[in-house]
Amino acid sequence: MSSHFRHVALIGKHPASVAVSGGGTPRAALEDMAQFLQAQGCEVCIERETAAHAGVHAHATLDVPSIGRECDLCLVVGGDGTMLGIGRQLAPFGVPLIGVNQGRLGFITDIRLDEWRTVLTPMLRGEYDEDRRRLMHARVMRDGQCVFDALAMNDVVVNRGATSGMVELRVEVDGHFVANQRSDGLIVASPTGSTAYALSAGGPLLHPSNPGWVLVPIAPHTLSNRPIVLNDAGEVTIELVAGRDASANFDMQSLASLLHGDRVTVCRSQHQVRFLHPRGWSYFDTLREKLHWYGGGGTS
Amino acid sequence: MSSHFRHVALIGKHPASVAVSGGGTPRAALEDMAQFLQAQGCEVCIERETAAHAGVHAHATLDVPSIGRECDLCLVVGGDGTMLGIGRQLAPFGVPLIGVNQGRLGFITDIRLDEWRTVLTPMLRGEYDEDRRRLMHARVMRDGQCVFDALAMNDVVVNRGATSGMVELRVEVDGHFVANQRSDGLIVASPTGSTAYALSAGGPLLHPSNPGWVLVPIAPHTLSNRPIVLNDAGEVTIELVAGRDASANFDMQSLASLLHGDRVTVCRSQHQVRFLHPRGWSYFDTLREKLHWYGGGGTS
Amino acid sequence: MSSHFRHVALIGKHPASVAVSGGGTPRAALEDMAQFLQAQGCEVCIERETAAHAGVHAHATLDVPSIGRECDLCLVVGGDGTMLGIGRQLAPFGVPLIGVNQGRLGFITDIRLDEWRTVLTPMLRGEYDEDRRRLMHARVMRDGQCVFDALAMNDVVVNRGATSGMVELRVEVDGHFVANQRSDGLIVASPTGSTAYALSAGGPLLHPSNPGWVLVPIAPHTLSNRPIVLNDAGEVTIELVAGRDASANFDMQSLASLLHGDRVTVCRSQHQVRFLHPRGWSYFDTLREKLHWYGGGGTS
Amino acid sequence: MSSHFRHVALIGKHPASVAVSGGGTPRAALEDMAQFLQAQGCEVCIERETAAHAGVHAHATLDVPSIGRECDLCLVVGGDGTMLGIGRQLAPFGVPLIGVNQGRLGFITDIRLDEWRTVLTPMLRGEYDEDRRRLMHARVMRDGQCVFDALAMNDVVVNRGATSGMVELRVEVDGHFVANQRSDGLIVASPTGSTAYALSAGGPLLHPSNPGWVLVPIAPHTLSNRPIVLNDAGEVTIELVAGRDASANFDMQSLASLLHGDRVTVCRSQHQVRFLHPRGWSYFDTLREKLHWYGGGGTS
Repeated sequence: MSSHFRHVALIGKHPASVAVSGGGTPRAALEDMAQFLQAQGCEVCIERETAAHAGVHAHATLDVPSIGRECDLCLVVGGDGTMLGIGRQLAPFGVPLIGVNQGRLGFITDIRLDEWRTVLTPMLRGEYDEDRRRLMHARVMRDGQCVFDALAMNDVVVNRGATSGMVELRVEVDGHFVANQRSDGLIVASPTGSTAYALSAGGPLLHPSNPGWVLVPIAPHTLSNRPIVLNDAGEVTIELVAGRDASANFDMQSLASLLHGDRVTVCRSQHQVRFLHPRGWSYFDTLREKLHWYGGGGTS
Repeated sequence: MSSHFRHVALIGKHPASVAVSGGGTPRAALEDMAQFLQAQGCEVCIERETAAHAGVHAHATLDVPSIGRECDLCLVVGGDGTMLGIGRQLAPFGVPLIGVNQGRLGFITDIRLDEWRTVLTPMLRGEYDEDRRRLMHARVMRDGQCVFDALAMNDVVVNRGATSGMVELRVEVDGHFVANQRSDGLIVASPTGSTAYALSAGGPLLHPSNPGWVLVPIAPHTLSNRPIVLNDAGEVTIELVAGRDASANFDMQSLASLLHGDRVTVCRSQHQVRFLHPRGWSYFDTLREKLHWYGGGGTS
Repeated sequence: MSSHFRHVALIGKHPASVAVSGGGTPRAALEDMAQFLQAQGCEVCIERETAAHAGVHAHATLDVPSIGRECDLCLVVGGDGTMLGIGRQLAPFGVPLIGVNQGRLGFITDIRLDEWRTVLTPMLRGEYDEDRRRLMHARVMRDGQCVFDALAMNDVVVNRGATSGMVELRVEVDGHFVANQRSDGLIVASPTGSTAYALSAGGPLLHPSNPGWVLVPIAPHTLSNRPIVLNDAGEVTIELVAGRDASANFDMQSLASLLHGDRVTVCRSQHQVRFLHPRGWSYFDTLREKLHWYGGGGTS
Repeated sequence: MSSHFRHVALIGKHPASVAVSGGGTPRAALEDMAQFLQAQGCEVCIERETAAHAGVHAHATLDVPSIGRECDLCLVVGGDGTMLGIGRQLAPFGVPLIGVNQGRLGFITDIRLDEWRTVLTPMLRGEYDEDRRRLMHARVMRDGQCVFDALAMNDVVVNRGATSGMVELRVEVDGHFVANQRSDGLIVASPTGSTAYALSAGGPLLHPSNPGWVLVPIAPHTLSNRPIVLNDAGEVTIELVAGRDASANFDMQSLASLLHGDRVTVCRSQHQVRFLHPRGWSYFDTLREKLHWYGGGGTS
């Protein structure tokens, strides 16, 4: 039996997040998957820190950039956070990812740990649906210099300090003035990020097939400052006009102490993350599950 | 001096709406514009009902379909409603429209009556920005038959009867089940319609360059039923599952008395409306004006 | 053993609603309860239509007004809808109600059918918490005449016709002009109604101990037309200024075909509904359960 | 001619805020008002710092606590911020306040600087409407000790740090568990504060006659965590369960670095602020003006 994918990497819950949530991917699960992949004819390697952390020594290990260069599939065992982190790193290499969730299903990790064998078998034969997600490329410009540069899958957020009042932000799109907003902050979210912080702040859901970003103001002073969905081909610029202790946040990475006049720019990265789903996968099934929309009639 | 446009039609506020708001386009304005256009080297005609209603007899008249076939520009004097109605009719012919507003500026009629001369002069020389808006093609299917067929620029709405409780709607996108929603109704809005009813119901703003529709539930029973922005390449289907006296509305046209099992489908029309704006036009300037976002700093 | 309540009435799911949802209160449950109440020393009667519908013939029967005059407790077996209907009828008599829910717990029927014995035993001894809800007294005035008069527990709603555009409503509170609102309609909700339609339309939750009404506009044209919480000592007046086929709805009762100039007034009724809950009952427990707020930490 | 008020204090824009916004109350205005009040038969004093700052030396000066003890009316010339600060200080003394606004009308300073003579004349004769606002008494408890104690007129806010994720807050009312909320923070607002930050975060408007507080979650993780309006007789407790760098804010005063387990409690102060308005004053007139509800028909 031969797999559609020749060289497959296994990555577990990222050690960095383990301290917080108390537990990496169990060794047994990783070893079972490795054997299963080999039985399907794949060459298998395990991400170096995952192997060290779980105590798995029977397989070749690679760091993430080497996985990007050498593998043609990456199997991630963890939650959405792990998947986003790895996806960001692998995007420049074009390696697709499959997510197996250890706990409750996530928005992008949609295979349960107890069903991976059944679900992966056809996927390894090439029976899958591909779902590409655009990355955001964000920069912070100060006095004409780039002082911060990051990729983000979910969102770029500029927000006020904890004990200060509102920030005032001057927003432009492709050089066109949009508004001076006074608020707790502003979120620029991708479709992937539209189900995260942006949703809490009142933003709409963006289907991954929509090539847009959404600007979502956080607690805006002007009540008509509503979320705006843009085309992601444009460049968004957010300039800090007023407010103390403002910061910029790119997925998990933060730049504190923005200065007045700093400009945060967001544009579409040339890279995309490639997620593979079981054939017949539907984004709406995930929404319904995660947002507790009960589909049947009469459930009151 | 020669115009970029050879044959130009003038259309005034549509007589049908005059009864409501008390006044068509004044004869003097139409005659001034006609003379101005001729002086720029254009051949001018006036839409038949506009001419009759305003009492303008010195120019050729054409009905709207003939304007579609024979003219290469249409100048609309009225408000957004007039512009939407004419735009829908001219879309199949690809004739571009320019909107001159008699009253307060609209979202798409962005030239003031008192400045048309200055603004139109460069536009007639070809100095304009073009803004294409997709049309929605909506149908109502009953027992496998199409019982209603319409184009819409703003939105397609399915809603409950006035004295009955919620409707239950089964929503699908490209055959994928989205949700059974219980609510007052559901709006499918284009970017053009995102500043109209959908905005009142809690939807986001969609920039015209975003190729999307937004589904906005009206007073949904399930609080997590949030607006969803789709790619407009997909087909949306809304089936009436439960509820009395429900109706479907397509811009201004209504189909009352939907039956259980009726399916309203919405897909992208092959036609687009072409709006021409003064060079340097920005959608955001219009938003700021219409939604009272005051751009300067410190306005409290 | 002696009950705090001497004469107790049993009322089942109201026949009027049975047609819709397919099933009244089962005979066995009613007979069990009746025997249990007699064993506690109560004199028991069964509401006339309930008895007829369930086929229970071994007990005295009374109609609802007689129950109001003769009983000092009413046990309602049904859902929130049943409880609201009976509560409205019994309020003028001051008879308290206890709600036993046949299906999923409701906001006000908070005793499960499978635990009534355990829960009722101490309540009948006088160990209960009382929760009083104010009723709304609504009237429709036309040309100085009252053409409709109703009590409502949940809400009074004025809304547009199904195939017409917005209504325009002139709102006053105690003779002070509030606003001319253009919208799909306006809800005046009590704390009890704040978890019903008003919540779907974007209103806040009102704790029953707050003596207020909330005005919630439905899809308002002006984005800053936000819900307003009033003191229920005031009188709210809603005048229909513009719009076709508008109607007024008082809980389940409707008055279609409002005319321009009709004024719907809402003030506090002198009557209150008295709900009895098990000792230690908390409104917040119900909210948490019904709105799926999961209380524990870390549930993502 | 004799005034209803014997001893009147004049307070200008508070020097603390002048640094920010660039200008105190002009000397001429203060001197004019002082003379006017004397002509009405009042004994006049000027708040000490106001006098020093404006260079007014012809009148007796008092500090704010002495004004509280000795005066029976206080005239505040400034904006809402000045009025709130002085109101908080004078509440324990029961001295009523009248607000004259130097700039754009505020929610509580409703007399324009150019019309004060006309408006004050009848008010000094006793022709006014009184509007009492409850104060919030907030405390931060740590290990059973009170580490912070403050009065607030607008709101008490617990929020996350600028570069950290959500906080988790355990909310109780009168000892009843409400919810564990994960969000950017939580606002407890009075009716006065309901038009400030709470409104931006999605809260309803509370009429000052409603004896309530509103809890407004800021960007809550759970979409059904909606604002809740309570009776202000209850005590609200907010415990920090998780989250870094959280802080508590009481109107303008902040306590940074809350620790896990800290409990912020809010209850009704025994003191009320007394605002006097011109006879016929309506809260709704202010709302309409400040929120740009245009009352006439057909305005858009």
